[in-house]
Amino acid sequence: MPSLAPHVASVPTSGIRRIFEIAAKLDDVAMLVVGEPDVPVPHHVADAARRAWADDRTNYTPNGGVPALREALVAKLARENDVHVDVEQVWVTVGATQALHQTMGLLLAAGDEVLVPDPGYTTFTMNARMLDAVPVPYALSPDRGFVPHVDDLEKLVTPRTRVIIVNSPSNPLGVVYEREVLQSLLDFAARHDLWVISDEVYEYFTYGTPHVSLASLDADDRVFSVFSTSKTYAMTGVRVGYLVTPRGLADTMRTVQEAAISCVAEPDQLAALAAVLGDHSPVSEAREHYRSNLELAKGLLDERGIRYLDPQGAFYLWIDVGHASRGDVAAWAEDLLFQHRVAVAPGSAFGRSGEGWIRVCLASSPEVITRGLAALPAPGDPRRPLGRASVVSSD
Amino acid sequence: MPSLAPHVASVPTSGIRRIFEIAAKLDDVAMLVVGEPDVPVPHHVADAARRAWADDRTNYTPNGGVPALREALVAKLARENDVHVDVEQVWVTVGATQALHQTMGLLLAAGDEVLVPDPGYTTFTMNARMLDAVPVPYALSPDRGFVPHVDDLEKLVTPRTRVIIVNSPSNPLGVVYEREVLQSLLDFAARHDLWVISDEVYEYFTYGTPHVSLASLDADDRVFSVFSTSKTYAMTGVRVGYLVTPRGLADTMRTVQEAAISCVAEPDQLAALAAVLGDHSPVSEAREHYRSNLELAKGLLDERGIRYLDPQGAFYLWIDVGHASRGDVAAWAEDLLFQHRVAVAPGSAFGRSGEGWIRVCLASSPEVITRGLAALPAPGDPRRPLGRASVVSSD
Repeated sequence: MPSLAPHVASVPTSGIRRIFEIAAKLDDVAMLVVGEPDVPVPHHVADAARRAWADDRTNYTPNGGVPALREALVAKLARENDVHVDVEQVWVTVGATQALHQTMGLLLAAGDEVLVPDPGYTTFTMNARMLDAVPVPYALSPDRGFVPHVDDLEKLVTPRTRVIIVNSPSNPLGVVYEREVLQSLLDFAARHDLWVISDEVYEYFTYGTPHVSLASLDADDRVFSVFSTSKTYAMTGVRVGYLVTPRGLADTMRTVQEAAISCVAEPDQLAALAAVLGDHSPVSEAREHYRSNLELAKGLLDERGIRYLDPQGAFYLWIDVGHASRGDVAAWAEDLLFQHRVAVAPGSAFGRSGEGWIRVCLASSPEVITRGLAALPAPGDPRRPLGRASVVSSD
Repeated sequence: MPSLAPHVASVPTSGIRRIFEIAAKLDDVAMLVVGEPDVPVPHHVADAARRAWADDRTNYTPNGGVPALREALVAKLARENDVHVDVEQVWVTVGATQALHQTMGLLLAAGDEVLVPDPGYTTFTMNARMLDAVPVPYALSPDRGFVPHVDDLEKLVTPRTRVIIVNSPSNPLGVVYEREVLQSLLDFAARHDLWVISDEVYEYFTYGTPHVSLASLDADDRVFSVFSTSKTYAMTGVRVGYLVTPRGLADTMRTVQEAAISCVAEPDQLAALAAVLGDHSPVSEAREHYRSNLELAKGLLDERGIRYLDPQGAFYLWIDVGHASRGDVAAWAEDLLFQHRVAVAPGSAFGRSGEGWIRVCLASSPEVITRGLAALPAPGDPRRPLGRASVVSSD
């Protein structure tokens, strides 16, 4: 066997997937590890997909997507996001994942640098490495309120910096950036002539600070926006997202979409169309469900003195377990899974700043959340120091 | 706006898509340009998809695909292809397109060279350019029987050559390589320690020479095989293909699939499962339909003395229009479309060797094929020299 392209060896594996795969082989696990909504797909969405199949709507579509869907997204972007684009700037993708993958492929050559949030979503770093580009983490730390600061970013810029990735509402933190923060990031990008990739897949789930789309502030065509139907309509496994590009890139996008995927599945696009155009009360209900889980979880953690970041958006809770994890939260999360049958995402999977933290997904039932959080050690609780060393020494 | 990564500008557009898009805006066009089967998806496949939607099977699946589908594919590969692999070598992809895209991303670094058939499928070249790699065409020419010869290939190898792409049954030619040819290509690859990517999406459509899977001859784990449900089951717009890798790459594949697409849509995977496990008589019926169209088309061309390559597989006809196209078959095909409302793929879209030829898709009705072929000029027919010059001089 010959060898793979050398840079492929540097692509990190997902520390979330590792826990997920172990959990999938165990019984009776409290699954709080992946961002999978626990509510069903709305009926009118499933009905549209079933009708598409019944009508044999199973053919190639234009590379950018079914025209009706692109038009519906243009209207949604204007109405909900204050982003005003034409149809040729909207590209239907295989979830936000492929939108991100495609965009990074357009913008980064080997050796280029991309600023990625730390902690931040795992695939930002993975895709950079797949392109032989260099992910440069910018820390979102408790002492900075978990928000990016331009003076920190300035220190990271080099002549090879090409892109900054911004994610609000953020995964794993659940922080929602204020308009002023977004404007400062855009000004920073303009100063260094960087592209901006804005990941907004949790746009519909905020609990206070309203969501602002970065592209609504973009005066000079430097923002690529990544959206998805996955989290909004609880259709993660239908794989329909969309990318909104600056103007003037339609020919390029057509070509790279043709080469990478050809198009998104037609029945799934028609399902997404029904979701975007249809009744949004299931979205409000899901938001209330996540908010109610959040209140429950905060109460449980407060009771036991466990520190967490109070999120303004998304459906995760970022919890400090540094008092127990002994500098290796990935190993600690694995022990938690084996000992207590509770699956959480180790913070280190999201970057170096995540060491000592875990991400708990709130898109679950109150029972599972209660059981999962009960397994976490409180600071100073002598019965609960898990961590690898104690596992080795016990039974 | 900053600039894109410099190598992106070198990604060629698809000359097929160009004709397709013009044709889509005209009325009453005989559409012979894209490889879209004209038969419906089998009922049991659509039923399985509708059931999946009814049961809310719309969640993330493992990166490699639904286990039942991967297992069914392992059994199919053993039974139909004499390819014996385990489940962790089979990766469900967004059609063959994404399988190819992903594989090239694994194997090619910037500046590496990949041997691609000329004429050959457009995305081989497009994906190479997207990776800043160099596509090196190997000619499939009439004087060589449209088959690759190792002595020609030897002249193209450099220290940067990493991969050879093989496509049988071939698109656009419809040539099916004999076992000896495949073995010689594999020996060549071994001699230079190259990877081989084998595109076998037309495996079920052969009309004489039986299909042999390259991986069935692979003794040293160098072949990646690309398959799809798209053409076989007339489900191009459902976007389910699969990649069969050499052993030992599961961890890497899991990571890159996670970063590029996460997974293929769950309802579509369940549709593919029904297709693979279910009654294959629709596949035989489709093959007979294409074969009967082929006989019709050959008769029409023979009658008028128009030269073509007699295909042994796939569902295309490769037709010589060099007597009319005057060295610019892309422009000529555009004129044919505007003048006669007949859409065909210009051979030059598939590489330099395709100049003077067109590809006609036979997955259509006898009426459309008859009308389309009647518009082609016969050699020496004074009424029919199309070509740009004559267009300019007439009305």
